[in-house]
Amino acid sequence: MVVVASSSVSPSVVVDLLREELGDRVVTDPAVLDALRTDKSGWWSADPAIALVEAREVGDVQTAVRIAHRHGVAIVPRGAGTGLAGGATSTAGCIVLSLLQMNRILEISLHDELAVVEPGVINQALSDTLAPHGYVFSPDPASKAISTIGGNIANNAGGLLCAKYGVTREAILGLTVVLPDGSLLETGRRTVKGVTGYDLTALFTGSEGTLGVVVQATVRIRPIPEGPVATIGAFFSDVTAAAAACAAVTAARVRPAVMELMDAASVASVDRYLGTPSVQPGAAYVLVQTDTLSAEAEAAQIASILDTNGALQVELSTDPAAGEALLAFRRAFHPSLEALGEVLVEDVCVPRSNLAAMFAEIERISVAYGIAIPTVSHAGDGNLHPNFVISRAAVEDSDAAADAAPTDQLGVPDVVWQAADELFQASVRLGGTLTGEHGVGVLKRRWLENELGTAGLDLQRRIKAVFDPTGIMNPGKVY
Amino acid sequence: MVVVASSSVSPSVVVDLLREELGDRVVTDPAVLDALRTDKSGWWSADPAIALVEAREVGDVQTAVRIAHRHGVAIVPRGAGTGLAGGATSTAGCIVLSLLQMNRILEISLHDELAVVEPGVINQALSDTLAPHGYVFSPDPASKAISTIGGNIANNAGGLLCAKYGVTREAILGLTVVLPDGSLLETGRRTVKGVTGYDLTALFTGSEGTLGVVVQATVRIRPIPEGPVATIGAFFSDVTAAAAACAAVTAARVRPAVMELMDAASVASVDRYLGTPSVQPGAAYVLVQTDTLSAEAEAAQIASILDTNGALQVELSTDPAAGEALLAFRRAFHPSLEALGEVLVEDVCVPRSNLAAMFAEIERISVAYGIAIPTVSHAGDGNLHPNFVISRAAVEDSDAAADAAPTDQLGVPDVVWQAADELFQASVRLGGTLTGEHGVGVLKRRWLENELGTAGLDLQRRIKAVFDPTGIMNPGKVY
Repeated sequence: MVVVASSSVSPSVVVDLLREELGDRVVTDPAVLDALRTDKSGWWSADPAIALVEAREVGDVQTAVRIAHRHGVAIVPRGAGTGLAGGATSTAGCIVLSLLQMNRILEISLHDELAVVEPGVINQALSDTLAPHGYVFSPDPASKAISTIGGNIANNAGGLLCAKYGVTREAILGLTVVLPDGSLLETGRRTVKGVTGYDLTALFTGSEGTLGVVVQATVRIRPIPEGPVATIGAFFSDVTAAAAACAAVTAARVRPAVMELMDAASVASVDRYLGTPSVQPGAAYVLVQTDTLSAEAEAAQIASILDTNGALQVELSTDPAAGEALLAFRRAFHPSLEALGEVLVEDVCVPRSNLAAMFAEIERISVAYGIAIPTVSHAGDGNLHPNFVISRAAVEDSDAAADAAPTDQLGVPDVVWQAADELFQASVRLGGTLTGEHGVGVLKRRWLENELGTAGLDLQRRIKAVFDPTGIMNPGKVY
Repeated sequence: MVVVASSSVSPSVVVDLLREELGDRVVTDPAVLDALRTDKSGWWSADPAIALVEAREVGDVQTAVRIAHRHGVAIVPRGAGTGLAGGATSTAGCIVLSLLQMNRILEISLHDELAVVEPGVINQALSDTLAPHGYVFSPDPASKAISTIGGNIANNAGGLLCAKYGVTREAILGLTVVLPDGSLLETGRRTVKGVTGYDLTALFTGSEGTLGVVVQATVRIRPIPEGPVATIGAFFSDVTAAAAACAAVTAARVRPAVMELMDAASVASVDRYLGTPSVQPGAAYVLVQTDTLSAEAEAAQIASILDTNGALQVELSTDPAAGEALLAFRRAFHPSLEALGEVLVEDVCVPRSNLAAMFAEIERISVAYGIAIPTVSHAGDGNLHPNFVISRAAVEDSDAAADAAPTDQLGVPDVVWQAADELFQASVRLGGTLTGEHGVGVLKRRWLENELGTAGLDLQRRIKAVFDPTGIMNPGKVY
């Protein structure tokens, strides 16, 4: 089901109205609009937008939203288009509202440990600006070099460091939002604490553009940890042993900055890609980093835990180059898959205690459907990214079919969706969630009720209606 | 204005209906009901409840709420009654629903670093149970020995450690809530991350009982930091110098576990109470604690910063007894005030960069109204607690007046409310908030619109209406 806001006027009238007020910030070049049908998930919407509005300031956003509101036109807010769930892709008859050019860092206050930014600021660009002062914006999604802070907020992005330093929600102090009627709302505050009224800042964080358009964010910044970074790479005979060793690290009450786990299929893929000799068939890889003044002591303790928990080999280094070499094995994972075809990255998250059980479910599903599902996990927080590789041939067949009769599609064979369906159900059954950090978008909408329940989903829809009674905000996404 | 849900039947019929289903869990002893008119703020509601329901299980809560819902009777959820803003005091014709007997710790999972608790569990009791395993529940309001986790959630409680370890919201993974129609809602999850739907867990946290009744919480637990605790006590010539020194600590990117600042009036009060000799008239006190494996190095760095930033004397110790002695000076603050009269504890929070400016405002207001306002601050997060001491005589006069014609009252002289009013306005003007961690309750309701704005407040009321369309949940509080 794609929800379409029912417009009272024709698309061309809406475009004329936008042009009249926003001039060349309105783009209708078909090639540009075509590109907005997709994001980094590889999913393509059947429907191009009627226009792209490239907002340069808050007033532009208000103008576009007011026109949309008056005429019942859908608004799809979009940052850099790096989403993995189709959350910022165009829907029928919509205006895509790009925040990418609203990319100014408006203020940095080291004293208050905060920055005020426009939504189009690239995550890494903020950290780069902060680095000379010894500060960092800690949410670190894998996309941080290319994704916007507005997009990170929309999806409550996580990352490698979030088990230790928190997800995006924990880094957002306040927001300025353009509501669906074009009015401005300020949420939150510049203080670290505050309990005046309901926490709307948290409500907007992770709302995937369904409540309003974030036009400014006051974000928390953190001191870059002092001291060295210590890196550990360790191989285990299989993923179960590796998961048990990660559990032992947690049980020892050590909190590494990074703890990544790669299963056998992932390790094999990287070995093939890099041409590295296999340590042992079926081997899994664990990568750990510690930081702060006690990094070395913590790393030594962790290395010893991994060793006594069955590691085949453990390498520990505080030398940056050697650490980078250990990290490179993990970093090569996505390139190794992309060399084989289109990659569908999934994103389940289970309680840490069920990490090994979830890996076992993935293995079972992989065998049952006869497809490889190489999986990496942020083992520190139970977040797993199972990957499906779809051969280019399948995608092209599907593209050809789509050219004939365009429909929402990703070129994903049915068998993959069936396997993904089992995967999501297994995650929820194990006390987990459909999505740890990528969002629901269009791709996971059909499983939402599984997790929230019917009454829970209904309540969520009624909250959306308080903000967006006419349903113009990113319709067809999430709800 | 006290909002009263309009009941369709007489109180005695409601009490009979409650008794029929809940038996001796329903209390109507006038002395018991009278005590529910107040909390630790010292404020007394004019109206006793029609009944107290002492819930022992989720079903009791559902039963009471269903009866209330059917007959339009107000429900006031209450924990240990340690609130400082009147948030859990009785309102006209209400049922007070006590969660104090729902005090079981249902599960502790060290592996998942979480606990599942009923709302009546005392904050400290959970940490005591966790301590042998090396874990702690980190929200640490000053009331932690006597306040419930349900109450902490209702007020999004902070504490001394929260600049480093986060407020209650950051410690809550999921909730089970009885909604105003008696149905059960589960929010959140057992995983560290997740972005399926709007963050209702955060919405309930800090909602002061206005949306539903929390009957179970899945809370995050944290390893007790390894290593020693180092404590620093330092005197400064005045509060401005002390605030500047605290700012210098933050600027050095050190993050102490505790950083408390006592102004001159506070120091003088403790000196009088303990009989300690005054270091110097007008002197202010800074207390800092560091923890983790790098505690000693961090403490040495901080002591040096305080020293070069004008400290009159700095004492640093990693010896527990000596550390306790330094802490004792701060601990004696509230007892020193209580020895003088009834204490009204305020709770503003400003951006750290405005800490000195807020102290200056407090001094200005103190002089203007001719009343002492001894103030302590969690300097790590800009939260200040200005205190008004009301002499017993004033309270008794007011009590006598109240006996004649009961009204909502605290025995607070008008001049104190005028001073408090200026204080709240100064805080909001400095980019701060009315309440960092105590909540709005009844006492700060009249200033709410100042901070949220008219449109913001209206939006909040509409969100409340989604959950509580008939307005039975804690009416007259916050909104």
